[in-house]
Amino acid sequence: MHLFYQPDAPAISALTEDDSRHAVKTLRLGTGEEILVTNGQGKQFTCVITKADHRQCAFRITGEKTTPARPFSIRICVAPTKNLDRIEWFVEKAVELGIEQISFFFSQHSERRVLKTERIEKIAVSAMKQSLQSWMPQIDEAIPFSQLLAAIPAEGQRFIAHLPDDEVPEHLFRAARTNEVYTVLIGPEGDFSEPEIQQAVQAGFRMAVLGPSRLRTETAALAACQILNLLNQ
Amino acid sequence: MHLFYQPDAPAISALTEDDSRHAVKTLRLGTGEEILVTNGQGKQFTCVITKADHRQCAFRITGEKTTPARPFSIRICVAPTKNLDRIEWFVEKAVELGIEQISFFFSQHSERRVLKTERIEKIAVSAMKQSLQSWMPQIDEAIPFSQLLAAIPAEGQRFIAHLPDDEVPEHLFRAARTNEVYTVLIGPEGDFSEPEIQQAVQAGFRMAVLGPSRLRTETAALAACQILNLLNQ
Repeated sequence: MHLFYQPDAPAISALTEDDSRHAVKTLRLGTGEEILVTNGQGKQFTCVITKADHRQCAFRITGEKTTPARPFSIRICVAPTKNLDRIEWFVEKAVELGIEQISFFFSQHSERRVLKTERIEKIAVSAMKQSLQSWMPQIDEAIPFSQLLAAIPAEGQRFIAHLPDDEVPEHLFRAARTNEVYTVLIGPEGDFSEPEIQQAVQAGFRMAVLGPSRLRTETAALAACQILNLLNQ
Repeated sequence: MHLFYQPDAPAISALTEDDSRHAVKTLRLGTGEEILVTNGQGKQFTCVITKADHRQCAFRITGEKTTPARPFSIRICVAPTKNLDRIEWFVEKAVELGIEQISFFFSQHSERRVLKTERIEKIAVSAMKQSLQSWMPQIDEAIPFSQLLAAIPAEGQRFIAHLPDDEVPEHLFRAARTNEVYTVLIGPEGDFSEPEIQQAVQAGFRMAVLGPSRLRTETAALAACQILNLLNQ
């Protein structure tokens, strides 16, 4: 059965414009056919189409399933890559594997200085549907690094992925505890600047490594996400 | 310092044609400059350019570093995706994270029936250089599934990523032991056919799951690779 996303369900019982077109024009679904609708907040509704309108496909809810929030939460804060494909790939894969929040920031060494999150939202929605999940992660607009640091609550376990020259920090898999609120900072292609690292460490972020080899920005972001998911398996 | 790949080093002390052009034309490296050269078999040589020829850039070896093979090995066998980008992403990321062998196969439900590995080899080489590694994974041409099964040695731990309707197999992270020779089979977009699963199980492959949500082919392949890497951290 096809899964659609209506963040305002059950208050609104029609698909969004994009999903209506997809359901009626592409999938050719008609009145009386069953669909699944999630509100991205843990609810999945079984529904029957009552009006197969390609601008506003209406449905009636016939069943409901609740998926509780996970007992841990993963927030990855990442500097967007120069090549947008790479960050979009990270978002798609992270949503498939499980993530609660994705935040973007501009760092001193960031080549990219503009990021539109509209397309990234769409990719996240599509990955949520593809992997049949009922929770839509929060996607935050890109802000400067210092502003991000100031906005992150001082709770849970907070890490910065960084390998300094003079010591080898603990692997994230060993440094993290289970069932925590995790925040991980992942630097840009040119890595964090020294002042940025100092700023993060002073704010209570702990350095951690993600593996033995040098990883690209988006690979590091995904590795962090999967490490924390696995830890809580 | 720039890292280049010459599989026949130290027997041959010149870069390949591609790397020669890249070194001399793109990076504008000249005689007397230092470069790193790996043979993809664990050796990394420090070299000095002796002839900056863009068809055959010659070097003299001045130092050598050996990285031993890992005490475990990961072989992922995957049905190529319809969209080639997806399988290329998997190869790039798997090489960054660490993998010994990537094998492709055509399954009953495979939409893609042709796969050229030349471009995939290039992606693997570039990911190996990017992550500063000295081991180049083996990349195998795509063959039919039954032929692949017959060719996999009956050694180490062998898994098939599959979630049957009637039971939940163990998570790969718990089913796998450390320091093993691992082989994992990952099905196509339409999943393995029932006879293929039976065939694999009869050949000694054990079913395992990779996480709580439904993963795309290339995400599953990468998840399996990272699970086994993490297990051996």
